[in-house]
Amino acid sequence: MKPVRQVFFVSDRTGITAESMGLALLNQFDNIEFKRATYPFVDTEKKAREIVALINNAANHSETRPLVFSSIVDENVRKLIKTSAGLHMSFYDAFIGELEDELATEANHSIGRTHGMHDTERYDKRMEAINFALNHDDGITDRELKKADVILMGVSRSGKTPTCLYLALQYGIRAANYPLIPEDLQSSELPRMLQPFRQKLYGLTIDADRLHHIRSERRPDSRYASRDNCRHEILTAEDMFRRFNIPYTNTTHKSIEELAASIILAAKLQRRF
Amino acid sequence: MKPVRQVFFVSDRTGITAESMGLALLNQFDNIEFKRATYPFVDTEKKAREIVALINNAANHSETRPLVFSSIVDENVRKLIKTSAGLHMSFYDAFIGELEDELATEANHSIGRTHGMHDTERYDKRMEAINFALNHDDGITDRELKKADVILMGVSRSGKTPTCLYLALQYGIRAANYPLIPEDLQSSELPRMLQPFRQKLYGLTIDADRLHHIRSERRPDSRYASRDNCRHEILTAEDMFRRFNIPYTNTTHKSIEELAASIILAAKLQRRF
Repeated sequence: MKPVRQVFFVSDRTGITAESMGLALLNQFDNIEFKRATYPFVDTEKKAREIVALINNAANHSETRPLVFSSIVDENVRKLIKTSAGLHMSFYDAFIGELEDELATEANHSIGRTHGMHDTERYDKRMEAINFALNHDDGITDRELKKADVILMGVSRSGKTPTCLYLALQYGIRAANYPLIPEDLQSSELPRMLQPFRQKLYGLTIDADRLHHIRSERRPDSRYASRDNCRHEILTAEDMFRRFNIPYTNTTHKSIEELAASIILAAKLQRRF
Repeated sequence: MKPVRQVFFVSDRTGITAESMGLALLNQFDNIEFKRATYPFVDTEKKAREIVALINNAANHSETRPLVFSSIVDENVRKLIKTSAGLHMSFYDAFIGELEDELATEANHSIGRTHGMHDTERYDKRMEAINFALNHDDGITDRELKKADVILMGVSRSGKTPTCLYLALQYGIRAANYPLIPEDLQSSELPRMLQPFRQKLYGLTIDADRLHHIRSERRPDSRYASRDNCRHEILTAEDMFRRFNIPYTNTTHKSIEELAASIILAAKLQRRF
Protein backbone atom coordinates (compact mmCIF):
# COMPACT_ATOMS: atom_id res chain seq x y z
CA MET A 1 0.00 0.00 0.00
CA LYS A 2 1.18 3.46 -0.88
CA PRO A 3 1.71 6.00 1.90
CA VAL A 4 -1.08 8.57 2.01
CA ARG A 5 -0.76 12.35 2.21
CA GLN A 6 -3.52 14.87 2.75
CA VAL A 7 -3.42 17.79 0.37
CA PHE A 8 -5.28 21.08 0.76
CA PHE A 9 -5.77 23.50 -2.10
CA VAL A 10 -6.74 26.86 -0.67
CA SER A 11 -7.67 29.86 -2.77
CA ASP A 12 -9.42 33.20 -2.50
CA ARG A 13 -11.04 32.55 -5.85
CA THR A 14 -11.96 29.35 -7.66
CA GLY A 15 -9.04 27.18 -6.58
CA ILE A 16 -8.30 26.23 -10.17
CA THR A 17 -4.85 27.82 -10.20
CA ALA A 18 -3.84 26.29 -6.87
CA GLU A 19 -5.09 22.91 -8.06
CA SER A 20 -3.41 22.94 -11.42
CA MET A 21 -0.15 24.09 -9.87
CA GLY A 22 -0.33 21.55 -7.06
CA LEU A 23 -1.35 18.65 -9.27
CA ALA A 24 1.45 19.32 -11.74
CA LEU A 25 3.86 18.96 -8.81
CA LEU A 26 2.16 16.01 -7.15
CA ASN A 27 2.08 14.11 -10.45
CA GLN A 28 5.84 13.90 -10.02
CA PHE A 29 5.43 11.59 -7.04
CA ASP A 30 3.49 8.56 -8.13
CA ASN A 31 4.59 6.34 -5.27
CA ILE A 32 2.44 8.33 -2.86
CA GLU A 33 -1.33 8.51 -2.67
CA PHE A 34 -2.67 12.02 -2.29
CA LYS A 35 -6.04 12.73 -0.69
CA ARG A 36 -7.18 16.05 -2.02
CA ALA A 37 -9.57 18.72 -0.80
CA THR A 38 -10.15 22.13 -2.34
CA TYR A 39 -11.35 25.21 -0.49
CA PRO A 40 -12.27 28.07 -2.82
CA PHE A 41 -13.27 31.64 -1.93
CA VAL A 42 -11.20 31.79 1.28
CA ASP A 43 -11.11 35.57 1.26
CA THR A 44 -11.58 36.59 4.88
CA GLU A 45 -9.58 36.01 8.05
CA LYS A 46 -12.57 34.20 9.53
CA LYS A 47 -12.64 31.69 6.69
CA ALA A 48 -8.86 31.36 6.90
CA ARG A 49 -9.11 30.39 10.58
CA GLU A 50 -11.67 27.73 9.72
CA ILE A 51 -9.34 26.26 7.10
CA VAL A 52 -6.42 26.32 9.52
CA ALA A 53 -8.54 24.34 11.97
CA LEU A 54 -9.30 21.79 9.26
CA ILE A 55 -5.63 21.46 8.32
CA ASN A 56 -4.57 21.12 11.94
CA ASN A 57 -7.21 18.52 12.54
CA ALA A 58 -5.95 16.54 9.55
CA ALA A 59 -2.40 16.87 10.86
CA ASN A 60 -3.44 15.56 14.26
CA HIS A 61 -4.98 12.49 12.68
CA SER A 62 -2.01 11.64 10.53
CA GLU A 63 1.64 10.80 11.03
CA THR A 64 2.72 13.22 8.36
CA ARG A 65 2.13 16.89 7.67
CA PRO A 66 -0.58 17.81 5.19
CA LEU A 67 0.55 19.68 2.09
CA VAL A 68 -1.06 23.05 1.47
CA PHE A 69 -1.00 24.72 -1.94
CA SER A 70 -2.36 28.21 -1.80
CA SER A 71 -3.18 30.99 -4.16
CA ILE A 72 -4.23 33.86 -1.92
CA VAL A 73 -3.72 37.53 -2.66
CA ASP A 74 -4.53 39.08 0.71
CA GLU A 75 -1.43 39.04 2.90
CA ASN A 76 -3.26 38.70 6.18
CA VAL A 77 -5.30 35.76 4.98
CA ARG A 78 -2.14 34.18 3.57
CA LYS A 79 -0.25 34.66 6.81
CA LEU A 80 -3.03 33.00 8.75
CA ILE A 81 -3.03 29.97 6.45
CA LYS A 82 0.72 29.74 7.00
CA THR A 83 0.23 29.29 10.73
CA SER A 84 -1.29 25.86 10.11
CA ALA A 85 0.55 22.63 10.81
CA GLY A 86 0.78 21.89 7.08
CA LEU A 87 3.69 22.44 4.71
CA HIS A 88 2.60 25.62 3.01
CA MET A 89 3.49 26.22 -0.62
CA SER A 90 2.31 29.69 -1.45
CA PHE A 91 2.35 30.61 -4.95
CA TYR A 92 2.17 34.36 -4.27
CA ASP A 93 4.98 34.31 -1.71
CA ALA A 94 7.18 32.53 -4.21
CA PHE A 95 6.89 35.05 -7.00
CA ILE A 96 5.11 38.28 -6.14
CA GLY A 97 8.12 39.96 -4.51
CA GLU A 98 10.37 39.26 -7.46
CA LEU A 99 7.69 40.55 -9.82
CA GLU A 100 7.18 43.73 -7.80
CA ASP A 101 10.92 44.40 -8.00
CA GLU A 102 11.09 43.68 -11.70
CA LEU A 103 8.05 45.78 -12.58
CA ALA A 104 9.08 48.49 -10.12
CA THR A 105 5.53 48.76 -8.89
CA GLU A 106 3.49 47.31 -6.08
CA ALA A 107 0.96 44.56 -6.57
CA ASN A 108 -2.67 45.53 -6.04
CA HIS A 109 -3.18 42.86 -3.41
CA SER A 110 -6.79 42.80 -4.47
CA ILE A 111 -8.67 39.66 -5.35
CA GLY A 112 -9.42 38.86 -8.93
CA ARG A 113 -9.35 41.31 -11.72
CA THR A 114 -11.75 44.19 -11.69
CA HIS A 115 -14.90 43.02 -13.34
CA GLY A 116 -15.27 45.59 -16.02
CA MET A 117 -15.60 45.37 -19.73
CA HIS A 118 -12.86 42.81 -19.96
CA ASP A 119 -14.81 40.04 -18.28
CA THR A 120 -17.98 40.80 -20.20
CA GLU A 121 -16.11 40.60 -23.47
CA ARG A 122 -14.57 37.31 -22.48
CA TYR A 123 -17.98 35.95 -21.52
CA ASP A 124 -19.47 37.05 -24.82
CA LYS A 125 -16.66 35.48 -26.84
CA ARG A 126 -17.00 32.28 -24.87
CA MET A 127 -20.76 32.18 -25.38
CA GLU A 128 -20.37 32.86 -29.06
CA ALA A 129 -17.87 30.01 -29.39
CA ILE A 130 -19.97 27.64 -27.29
CA ASN A 131 -23.09 28.41 -29.29
CA PHE A 132 -21.07 27.89 -32.41
CA ALA A 133 -19.89 24.48 -31.22
CA LEU A 134 -23.38 23.46 -30.17
CA ASN A 135 -24.98 24.61 -33.41
CA HIS A 136 -22.35 22.83 -35.47
CA ASP A 137 -22.23 19.63 -33.55
CA ASP A 138 -22.70 16.72 -35.89
CA GLY A 139 -22.21 18.80 -39.01
CA ILE A 140 -25.91 19.40 -39.47
CA THR A 141 -25.42 22.70 -41.23
CA ASP A 142 -22.71 24.00 -43.54
CA ARG A 143 -24.18 27.47 -43.79
CA GLU A 144 -21.73 28.92 -41.30
CA LEU A 145 -18.74 26.62 -41.67
CA LYS A 146 -16.95 29.55 -43.19
CA LYS A 147 -17.07 31.28 -39.81
CA ALA A 148 -15.35 28.32 -38.15
CA ASP A 149 -11.78 28.71 -36.95
CA VAL A 150 -11.26 24.97 -37.30
CA ILE A 151 -13.36 21.99 -38.36
CA LEU A 152 -12.69 18.76 -36.49
CA MET A 153 -13.45 15.64 -38.48
CA GLY A 154 -13.36 12.01 -37.44
CA VAL A 155 -15.44 8.89 -37.06
CA SER A 156 -18.25 8.79 -34.51
CA ARG A 157 -16.95 8.85 -30.89
CA SER A 158 -13.42 9.86 -31.75
CA GLY A 159 -13.58 12.82 -29.35
CA LYS A 160 -14.74 15.69 -31.54
CA THR A 161 -17.52 17.11 -29.36
CA PRO A 162 -15.63 17.46 -26.06
CA THR A 163 -12.63 18.90 -27.88
CA CYS A 164 -14.83 21.48 -29.66
CA LEU A 165 -16.45 22.46 -26.37
CA TYR A 166 -13.12 22.71 -24.60
CA LEU A 167 -11.67 24.89 -27.38
CA ALA A 168 -14.71 27.16 -27.00
CA LEU A 169 -14.67 27.38 -23.19
CA GLN A 170 -10.93 27.63 -22.63
CA TYR A 171 -9.88 29.68 -25.64
CA GLY A 172 -13.02 31.13 -27.27
CA ILE A 173 -12.16 29.29 -30.49
CA ARG A 174 -15.01 28.46 -32.87
CA ALA A 175 -14.66 24.78 -33.60
CA ALA A 176 -17.11 22.95 -35.82
CA ASN A 177 -17.47 19.23 -35.81
CA TYR A 178 -17.90 16.96 -38.79
CA PRO A 179 -18.54 13.26 -38.14
CA LEU A 180 -17.35 10.91 -40.88
CA ILE A 181 -20.30 8.65 -41.52
CA PRO A 182 -20.04 5.37 -43.46
CA GLU A 183 -21.18 7.12 -46.67
CA ASP A 184 -18.27 9.57 -46.38
CA LEU A 185 -15.86 6.74 -45.78
CA GLN A 186 -17.02 4.81 -48.84
CA SER A 187 -16.31 7.74 -51.11
CA SER A 188 -12.91 8.56 -52.52
CA GLU A 189 -13.66 12.26 -52.25
CA LEU A 190 -13.70 14.62 -49.31
CA PRO A 191 -17.27 15.12 -48.08
CA ARG A 192 -18.67 17.82 -50.35
CA MET A 193 -19.60 20.12 -47.47
CA LEU A 194 -15.94 20.26 -46.41
CA GLN A 195 -14.34 20.79 -49.79
CA PRO A 196 -14.37 24.60 -49.66
CA PHE A 197 -12.64 24.51 -46.25
CA ARG A 198 -9.56 22.36 -46.80
CA GLN A 199 -7.34 24.72 -44.83
CA LYS A 200 -9.50 24.50 -41.72
CA LEU A 201 -9.75 20.73 -41.46
CA TYR A 202 -8.18 18.83 -38.60
CA GLY A 203 -8.61 15.08 -38.16
CA LEU A 204 -9.08 13.07 -34.98
CA THR A 205 -8.37 9.39 -34.87
CA ILE A 206 -8.35 6.79 -32.09
CA ASP A 207 -7.17 3.23 -31.47
CA ALA A 208 -9.66 0.58 -32.59
CA ASP A 209 -9.81 -1.17 -29.21
CA ARG A 210 -10.58 2.04 -27.40
CA LEU A 211 -13.22 3.02 -29.95
CA HIS A 212 -14.77 -0.43 -29.66
CA HIS A 213 -14.94 0.05 -25.89
CA ILE A 214 -16.49 3.52 -26.13
CA ARG A 215 -19.04 2.52 -28.72
CA SER A 216 -19.93 -0.62 -26.81
CA GLU A 217 -21.01 1.52 -23.85
CA ARG A 218 -23.54 3.16 -26.12
CA ARG A 219 -24.68 0.30 -28.31
CA PRO A 220 -23.38 -3.03 -27.09
CA ASP A 221 -23.11 -5.88 -29.60
CA SER A 222 -23.98 -3.64 -32.54
CA ARG A 223 -22.20 -3.66 -35.87
CA TYR A 224 -21.42 0.00 -35.11
CA ALA A 225 -19.43 -1.04 -32.03
CA SER A 226 -17.83 -4.19 -33.44
CA ARG A 227 -14.05 -4.32 -33.37
CA ASP A 228 -13.89 -5.05 -37.09
CA ASN A 229 -16.08 -2.14 -38.02
CA CYS A 230 -14.17 0.22 -35.70
CA ARG A 231 -10.87 -0.86 -37.25
CA HIS A 232 -12.22 -0.48 -40.77
CA GLU A 233 -13.69 3.00 -40.15
CA ILE A 234 -10.50 4.22 -38.53
CA LEU A 235 -8.21 2.93 -41.27
CA THR A 236 -10.40 4.51 -43.94
CA ALA A 237 -10.57 7.82 -42.09
CA GLU A 238 -6.80 7.93 -41.56
CA ASP A 239 -6.33 7.13 -45.20
CA MET A 240 -8.56 10.07 -46.08
CA PHE A 241 -6.54 12.39 -43.80
CA ARG A 242 -3.31 11.34 -45.50
CA ARG A 243 -4.64 11.56 -49.05
CA PHE A 244 -5.96 15.06 -48.56
CA ASN A 245 -3.04 16.19 -46.44
CA ILE A 246 -5.20 16.89 -43.39
CA PRO A 247 -3.21 17.10 -40.15
CA TYR A 248 -4.50 14.66 -37.55
CA THR A 249 -3.93 13.39 -34.03
CA ASN A 250 -4.59 10.10 -32.29
CA THR A 251 -6.75 10.93 -29.27
CA THR A 252 -6.37 7.63 -27.42
CA HIS A 253 -3.64 8.66 -25.01
CA LYS A 254 -4.30 12.37 -24.91
CA SER A 255 -6.39 14.36 -22.48
CA ILE A 256 -8.83 16.90 -23.89
CA GLU A 257 -6.50 19.65 -22.67
CA GLU A 258 -3.60 18.16 -24.60
CA LEU A 259 -5.69 17.65 -27.71
CA ALA A 260 -6.90 21.24 -27.64
CA ALA A 261 -3.38 22.61 -27.15
CA SER A 262 -1.95 20.42 -29.95
CA ILE A 263 -4.65 21.50 -32.37
CA ILE A 264 -4.08 25.18 -31.62
CA LEU A 265 -0.36 24.70 -32.21
CA ALA A 266 -0.65 22.54 -35.34
CA ALA A 267 -3.43 24.57 -36.96
CA LYS A 268 -1.90 27.90 -35.84
CA LEU A 269 -5.24 28.97 -34.39
CA GLN A 270 -5.75 32.42 -32.97
CA ARG A 271 -7.11 32.32 -29.44
CA ARG A 272 -9.84 34.83 -28.70
CA PHE A 273 -8.75 35.40 -25.10
CA MET B 1 -0.27 54.82 -22.33
CA LYS B 2 0.58 51.90 -20.11
CA PRO B 3 4.08 50.48 -20.28
CA VAL B 4 4.18 47.17 -22.15
CA ARG B 5 5.82 43.90 -21.07
CA GLN B 6 6.25 40.78 -23.12
CA VAL B 7 5.28 37.62 -21.29
CA PHE B 8 6.17 34.08 -22.31
CA PHE B 9 4.40 31.04 -20.92
CA VAL B 10 6.53 27.99 -21.61
CA SER B 11 5.47 24.47 -20.80
CA ASP B 12 6.33 20.88 -21.65
CA ARG B 13 2.62 20.09 -21.77
CA THR B 14 -0.41 22.24 -22.52
CA GLY B 15 0.74 25.49 -20.94
CA ILE B 16 -2.48 25.77 -18.95
CA THR B 17 -0.76 25.58 -15.56
CA ALA B 18 1.93 28.08 -16.51
CA GLU B 19 -0.74 30.42 -17.87
CA SER B 20 -3.08 30.20 -14.92
CA MET B 21 -0.20 30.71 -12.49
CA GLY B 22 1.23 33.59 -14.49
CA LEU B 23 -2.08 35.32 -15.09
CA ALA B 24 -3.04 35.16 -11.42
CA LEU B 25 0.19 37.03 -10.69
CA LEU B 26 -0.01 39.47 -13.57
CA ASN B 27 -3.59 40.40 -12.67
CA GLN B 28 -2.03 42.04 -9.63
CA PHE B 29 -0.40 44.67 -11.83
CA ASP B 30 -3.10 46.45 -13.74
CA ASN B 31 -1.03 49.51 -14.55
CA ILE B 32 1.05 47.50 -17.02
CA GLU B 33 -0.02 46.03 -20.33
CA PHE B 34 1.15 42.47 -20.84
CA LYS B 35 1.64 41.00 -24.30
CA ARG B 36 1.30 37.26 -23.93
CA ALA B 37 2.51 34.29 -25.92
CA THR B 38 2.21 30.64 -24.93
CA TYR B 39 4.53 27.87 -26.08
CA PRO B 40 3.23 24.42 -25.18
CA PHE B 41 4.97 21.04 -25.61
CA VAL B 42 8.50 22.41 -25.18
CA ASP B 43 9.88 19.02 -24.21
CA THR B 44 13.24 18.76 -25.96
CA GLU B 45 16.45 20.75 -25.73
CA LYS B 46 16.10 21.65 -29.39
CA LYS B 47 12.69 23.22 -28.82
CA ALA B 48 14.02 24.95 -25.69
CA ARG B 49 16.79 26.59 -27.76
CA GLU B 50 14.21 27.88 -30.22
CA ILE B 51 12.19 29.43 -27.40
CA VAL B 52 15.30 31.00 -25.89
CA ALA B 53 16.00 32.58 -29.27
CA LEU B 54 12.46 33.98 -29.35
CA ILE B 55 12.76 35.38 -25.83
CA ASN B 56 16.15 36.93 -26.57
CA ASN B 57 14.83 38.45 -29.73
CA ALA B 58 11.93 39.99 -27.80
CA ALA B 59 14.40 41.28 -25.21
CA ASN B 60 16.53 42.90 -27.91
CA HIS B 61 13.52 44.74 -29.28
CA SER B 62 12.34 46.07 -25.96
CA GLU B 63 13.71 48.26 -23.22
CA THR B 64 12.62 45.85 -20.52
CA ARG B 65 13.17 42.15 -19.88
CA PRO B 66 10.43 39.76 -20.94
CA LEU B 67 8.80 37.75 -18.16
CA VAL B 68 8.94 33.98 -18.50
CA PHE B 69 6.59 31.70 -16.57
CA SER B 70 7.53 28.08 -16.99
CA SER B 71 6.18 24.72 -16.04
CA ILE B 72 8.82 22.29 -17.26
CA VAL B 73 9.68 19.01 -15.62
CA ASP B 74 12.90 18.10 -17.42
CA GLU B 75 15.83 19.75 -15.69
CA ASN B 76 17.94 20.17 -18.81
CA VAL B 77 15.14 21.80 -20.73
CA ARG B 78 14.41 24.04 -17.76
CA LYS B 79 18.05 25.05 -17.41
CA LEU B 80 18.19 26.01 -21.06
CA ILE B 81 15.11 28.20 -20.77
CA LYS B 82 16.77 29.89 -17.80
CA THR B 83 19.69 30.99 -19.96
CA SER B 84 17.38 33.40 -21.81
CA ALA B 85 17.46 37.14 -21.28
CA GLY B 86 14.00 36.99 -19.62
CA LEU B 87 13.14 37.00 -15.93
CA HIS B 88 12.44 33.33 -15.39
CA MET B 89 9.81 32.25 -12.89
CA SER B 90 9.93 28.50 -12.72
CA PHE B 91 7.23 26.88 -10.95
CA TYR B 92 9.15 23.58 -10.53
CA ASP B 93 12.31 25.23 -9.22
CA ALA B 94 10.24 27.07 -6.64
CA PHE B 95 8.64 24.04 -5.06
CA ILE B 96 9.92 20.68 -6.23
CA GLY B 97 12.98 20.63 -3.94
CA GLU B 98 10.92 21.36 -0.85
CA LEU B 99 8.41 18.71 -1.87
CA GLU B 100 11.15 16.12 -2.43
CA ASP B 101 12.49 16.82 1.06
CA GLU B 102 9.07 16.66 2.65
CA LEU B 103 8.03 13.48 0.89
CA ALA B 104 11.51 11.97 1.34
CA THR B 105 11.45 10.73 -2.22
CA GLU B 106 12.69 11.95 -5.55
CA ALA B 107 10.41 13.42 -8.18
CA ASN B 108 10.00 11.36 -11.33
CA HIS B 109 11.14 14.18 -13.55
CA SER B 110 8.96 12.72 -16.25
CA ILE B 111 6.45 14.68 -18.24
CA GLY B 112 2.80 14.31 -17.50
CA ARG B 113 1.26 11.47 -15.66
CA THR B 114 1.52 8.03 -17.15
CA HIS B 115 -1.40 7.61 -19.44
CA GLY B 116 -2.90 4.50 -18.01
CA MET B 117 -6.29 3.64 -16.67
CA HIS B 118 -6.47 6.89 -14.76
CA ASP B 119 -6.73 9.09 -17.83
CA THR B 120 -9.18 6.82 -19.56
CA GLU B 121 -11.45 6.89 -16.56
CA ARG B 122 -11.26 10.66 -16.43
CA TYR B 123 -12.07 10.86 -20.12
CA ASP B 124 -15.04 8.56 -19.71
CA LYS B 125 -16.43 10.52 -16.77
CA ARG B 126 -15.98 13.72 -18.67
CA MET B 127 -17.74 12.33 -21.72
CA GLU B 128 -20.58 11.01 -19.62
CA ALA B 129 -21.04 14.40 -17.98
CA ILE B 130 -20.78 16.28 -21.29
CA ASN B 131 -23.30 13.98 -22.93
CA PHE B 132 -25.51 14.43 -19.93
CA ALA B 133 -25.32 18.22 -20.23
CA LEU B 134 -25.94 18.12 -23.98
CA ASN B 135 -28.88 15.75 -23.66
CA HIS B 136 -30.41 17.82 -20.90
CA ASP B 137 -29.87 21.20 -22.41
CA ASP B 138 -33.12 23.13 -22.50
CA GLY B 139 -34.91 20.71 -20.22
CA ILE B 140 -36.33 18.72 -23.09
CA THR B 141 -36.50 15.51 -21.10
CA ASP B 142 -37.15 14.78 -17.44
CA ARG B 143 -36.61 11.06 -17.80
CA GLU B 144 -33.10 11.20 -16.39
CA LEU B 145 -33.23 14.26 -14.17
CA LYS B 146 -32.88 11.92 -11.25
CA LYS B 147 -29.36 11.11 -12.43
CA ALA B 148 -28.41 14.79 -12.37
CA ASP B 149 -26.02 16.02 -9.71
CA VAL B 150 -27.50 19.48 -10.00
CA ILE B 151 -30.21 21.17 -12.04
CA LEU B 152 -29.53 24.76 -13.04
CA MET B 153 -32.64 26.83 -13.56
CA GLY B 154 -33.01 30.38 -14.80
CA VAL B 155 -34.50 32.52 -17.51
CA SER B 156 -33.30 32.18 -21.09
CA ARG B 157 -29.70 33.45 -21.54
CA SER B 158 -28.88 33.63 -17.85
CA GLY B 159 -25.77 31.46 -18.34
CA LYS B 160 -27.04 27.93 -17.73
CA THR B 161 -25.55 26.17 -20.74
CA PRO B 162 -21.92 27.31 -20.45
CA THR B 163 -21.97 26.66 -16.71
CA CYS B 164 -23.32 23.12 -17.24
CA LEU B 165 -20.66 22.42 -19.84
CA TYR B 166 -17.92 23.83 -17.65
CA LEU B 167 -19.04 21.73 -14.68
CA ALA B 168 -18.90 18.68 -16.95
CA LEU B 169 -15.53 19.37 -18.53
CA GLN B 170 -13.68 20.64 -15.47
CA TYR B 171 -15.20 18.47 -12.75
CA GLY B 172 -17.15 15.65 -14.43
CA ILE B 173 -20.32 16.86 -12.71
CA ARG B 174 -23.65 16.02 -14.34
CA ALA B 175 -25.50 19.30 -14.59
CA ALA B 176 -28.91 19.54 -16.17
CA ASN B 177 -30.38 22.75 -17.37
CA TYR B 178 -33.95 23.95 -16.99
CA PRO B 179 -34.95 27.21 -18.70
CA LEU B 180 -37.76 29.12 -17.03
CA ILE B 181 -40.14 29.94 -19.84
CA PRO B 182 -42.92 32.54 -19.56
CA GLU B 183 -45.48 29.80 -18.73
CA ASP B 184 -43.35 28.72 -15.76
CA LEU B 185 -43.03 32.29 -14.59
CA GLN B 186 -46.79 32.89 -14.72
CA SER B 187 -47.44 29.97 -12.42
CA SER B 188 -47.24 30.14 -8.66
CA GLU B 189 -45.92 26.58 -8.54
CA LEU B 190 -42.51 25.14 -9.28
CA PRO B 191 -42.46 23.68 -12.80
CA ARG B 192 -43.94 20.22 -12.40
CA MET B 193 -40.92 18.47 -13.92
CA LEU B 194 -38.71 19.91 -11.19
CA GLN B 195 -40.93 19.24 -8.19
CA PRO B 196 -39.44 15.82 -7.35
CA PHE B 197 -35.92 17.32 -7.37
CA ARG B 198 -36.14 20.26 -4.99
CA GLN B 199 -32.81 19.38 -3.37
CA LYS B 200 -30.91 19.53 -6.64
CA LEU B 201 -32.15 22.88 -7.85
CA TYR B 202 -29.83 25.83 -8.19
CA GLY B 203 -30.93 29.16 -9.64
CA LEU B 204 -29.05 31.55 -11.90
CA THR B 205 -30.06 35.17 -12.20
CA ILE B 206 -28.57 38.17 -14.00
CA ASP B 207 -28.92 41.96 -14.11
CA ALA B 208 -31.69 43.18 -16.40
CA ASP B 209 -29.45 45.48 -18.42
CA ARG B 210 -26.98 42.75 -19.12
CA LEU B 211 -29.74 40.30 -20.08
CA HIS B 212 -31.25 42.91 -22.36
CA HIS B 213 -27.85 43.30 -24.04
CA ILE B 214 -27.32 39.55 -24.46
CA ARG B 215 -30.81 38.92 -25.80
CA SER B 216 -30.59 41.89 -28.14
CA GLU B 217 -27.61 40.27 -29.85
CA ARG B 218 -29.84 37.34 -30.67
CA ARG B 219 -33.17 38.99 -31.38
CA PRO B 220 -32.87 42.75 -31.60
CA ASP B 221 -36.00 44.83 -30.93
CA SER B 222 -38.04 41.80 -29.87
CA ARG B 223 -40.33 41.68 -26.89
CA TYR B 224 -38.07 38.84 -25.68
CA ALA B 225 -35.09 41.21 -25.53
CA SER B 226 -36.91 44.31 -24.27
CA ARG B 227 -35.63 45.81 -21.04
CA ASP B 228 -39.07 45.67 -19.46
CA ASN B 229 -39.57 42.03 -20.26
CA CYS B 230 -36.05 41.13 -19.06
CA ARG B 231 -36.68 42.95 -15.77
CA HIS B 232 -40.04 41.28 -15.33
CA GLU B 233 -38.75 37.77 -16.04
CA ILE B 234 -35.81 38.20 -13.69
CA LEU B 235 -37.90 39.55 -10.81
CA THR B 236 -40.38 36.71 -11.18
CA ALA B 237 -37.63 34.10 -11.35
CA GLU B 238 -35.86 35.48 -8.27
CA ASP B 239 -39.16 35.53 -6.47
CA MET B 240 -39.61 31.84 -7.33
CA PHE B 241 -36.11 31.03 -6.01
CA ARG B 242 -36.87 32.75 -2.72
CA ARG B 243 -40.33 31.25 -2.27
CA PHE B 244 -39.09 27.72 -2.79
CA ASN B 245 -35.85 28.25 -0.93
CA ILE B 246 -33.68 27.56 -3.95
CA PRO B 247 -30.10 28.85 -3.60
CA TYR B 248 -29.15 31.18 -6.44
CA THR B 249 -26.37 33.37 -7.77
CA ASN B 250 -26.27 36.49 -9.88
CA THR B 251 -24.08 35.68 -12.88
CA THR B 252 -23.54 39.23 -14.13
CA HIS B 253 -20.15 39.84 -12.55
CA LYS B 254 -18.94 36.29 -12.30
CA SER B 255 -16.82 34.29 -14.70
CA ILE B 256 -17.94 30.80 -15.62
CA GLU B 257 -15.09 29.43 -13.48
CA GLU B 258 -16.35 31.38 -10.47
CA LEU B 259 -19.94 30.35 -11.05
CA ALA B 260 -18.98 26.69 -11.28
CA ALA B 261 -16.86 26.84 -8.12
CA SER B 262 -19.61 28.67 -6.18
CA ILE B 263 -22.23 26.15 -7.21
CA ILE B 264 -20.05 23.21 -6.18
CA LEU B 265 -19.50 24.87 -2.81
CA ALA B 266 -23.09 25.97 -2.20
CA ALA B 267 -24.72 22.76 -3.42
CA LYS B 268 -22.02 20.57 -1.81
CA LEU B 269 -21.49 18.75 -5.09
CA GLN B 270 -19.20 15.78 -5.34
CA ARG B 271 -16.63 16.21 -8.08
CA ARG B 272 -15.99 13.13 -10.20
CA PHE B 273 -12.27 13.87 -10.68
